[in-house]
Amino acid sequence: MERFVTRRQVEFADTDSGGVVHFSRYMVFMETAEHQFLASRGINVDTRIQGKRVSWPRVAASCSYNRPLVFGDQVHIEVKVSRRGKTSMTYAFVLRRGDEEVACGEMTSVCCVIEPDGRFTAIPIPAELSVRLDGGGSES
Amino acid sequence: MERFVTRRQVEFADTDSGGVVHFSRYMVFMETAEHQFLASRGINVDTRIQGKRVSWPRVAASCSYNRPLVFGDQVHIEVKVSRRGKTSMTYAFVLRRGDEEVACGEMTSVCCVIEPDGRFTAIPIPAELSVRLDGGGSES
Amino acid sequence: MERFVTRRQVEFADTDSGGVVHFSRYMVFMETAEHQFLASRGINVDTRIQGKRVSWPRVAASCSYNRPLVFGDQVHIEVKVSRRGKTSMTYAFVLRRGDEEVACGEMTSVCCVIEPDGRFTAIPIPAELSVRLDGGGSES
Amino acid sequence: MERFVTRRQVEFADTDSGGVVHFSRYMVFMETAEHQFLASRGINVDTRIQGKRVSWPRVAASCSYNRPLVFGDQVHIEVKVSRRGKTSMTYAFVLRRGDEEVACGEMTSVCCVIEPDGRFTAIPIPAELSVRLDGGGSES
Repeated sequence: MERFVTRRQVEFADTDSGGVVHFSRYMVFMETAEHQFLASRGINVDTRIQGKRVSWPRVAASCSYNRPLVFGDQVHIEVKVSRRGKTSMTYAFVLRRGDEEVACGEMTSVCCVIEPDGRFTAIPIPAELSVRLDGGGSES
Repeated sequence: MERFVTRRQVEFADTDSGGVVHFSRYMVFMETAEHQFLASRGINVDTRIQGKRVSWPRVAASCSYNRPLVFGDQVHIEVKVSRRGKTSMTYAFVLRRGDEEVACGEMTSVCCVIEPDGRFTAIPIPAELSVRLDGGGSES
Repeated sequence: MERFVTRRQVEFADTDSGGVVHFSRYMVFMETAEHQFLASRGINVDTRIQGKRVSWPRVAASCSYNRPLVFGDQVHIEVKVSRRGKTSMTYAFVLRRGDEEVACGEMTSVCCVIEPDGRFTAIPIPAELSVRLDGGGSES
Repeated sequence: MERFVTRRQVEFADTDSGGVVHFSRYMVFMETAEHQFLASRGINVDTRIQGKRVSWPRVAASCSYNRPLVFGDQVHIEVKVSRRGKTSMTYAFVLRRGDEEVACGEMTSVCCVIEPDGRFTAIPIPAELSVRLDGGGSES
């Protein structure tokens, strides 16, 4: 599966008093890149399918930090699907500033129905989403 | 090394529109638990030693999410030192709600001097910090 | 109405690269103090009343910043109800570090039903909540 | 002074379990818009002038919330300088989704030197910044 790359600029609120981006914010950077990748395939991560609310909560997330990012940095975030299971997707991320790899990470998201009472139930990735993951793009 | 356990209550700002705690906030929960563990040993994570600013940026962080947390939940966070290197500390975390394990994670922090220009330089853990890590507690 | 005071310690993730607590985090500090005040009266800010989900979204929030807060600071947050309307509550907050007033703020929250489709509808504060706001405390 | 408008898309991490953007995140939206406005004038909010670190901490911030924002919304943020003092700038913000005004706010930032020990000292806005604020644009 081909690469998807998105870009963001470090905001002041992303930083901490160490002078660099707080390590928890990389999780947000990766999540938003995942969502933009899925949107590029016509998939909204918080949607309704056959009357049920379907979302993709995470079961695992990790990040390795190579170089600090600072306020104003332009970051390119590459997303690749590293594993596609029956109910889950695992993504690999690389964050770059120019040619420099500043961090890399991985996240596994599980396709779930959010029940009316708020509980999550894992479900096989619905056919209409699988098609979009395969096909590269939305009809919309 | 014995366990250290701290506690926090989920705040509204920790949650997301999935109805649960956003996965990036667990990183903050673990970091604060790390800082409280170190404080219990008399170690401030952002301090000056021999005129230099010494801090502990992270080089790796990961979390596995077993059960969602919701607004108002009381979370117990257990911290254990799983590896102590020459320049780094690796911590293992378990998050529990009552008897239920809701998440577990790991983080590696490297002892660094923050140079006046903002760069981080890894240093061997200073003797005065090692003593405190060994000894269990501050003299202050 | 008497004062309610709560306390929190500044976490590393609250700070920014100016070396101080990011100004947006004071909003979280005040919100959590509001929630703790309401909890002290037996009121959960996200609850169900007669089968409907009732919450208190904000329509206004403001803060004046007198002195910066830094990592590790102990902050006392005082909450007072400054106005109680038919559908809304306005709270005044003072944040102190020791005897020093570091910030003050105000927030207005409106009692709303969250409809199944996610829309908010303002409602008169339900009698069972008014009684608790009056009476000082929950029977639970 | 003419208007400056920037745009952002609501991220999942901006939301809370009320299903909408957490009210504290509007502060970040406004701050980043302020920074982008200043950048459009060639002004970096965290810079060095004559060897001193100059930044713009906030002394006041407020927001009125008219309509909730949800995940995925496109928000246009308009920035206007509503008052320019000797040491401070006051900005007025309007947030729109399409033609709908969803929120408006105000913030006052003070030009400060960050001393080596971390203290802030208010200073008159340096001439080289005033020129840029007047002139509309950087030479860079």
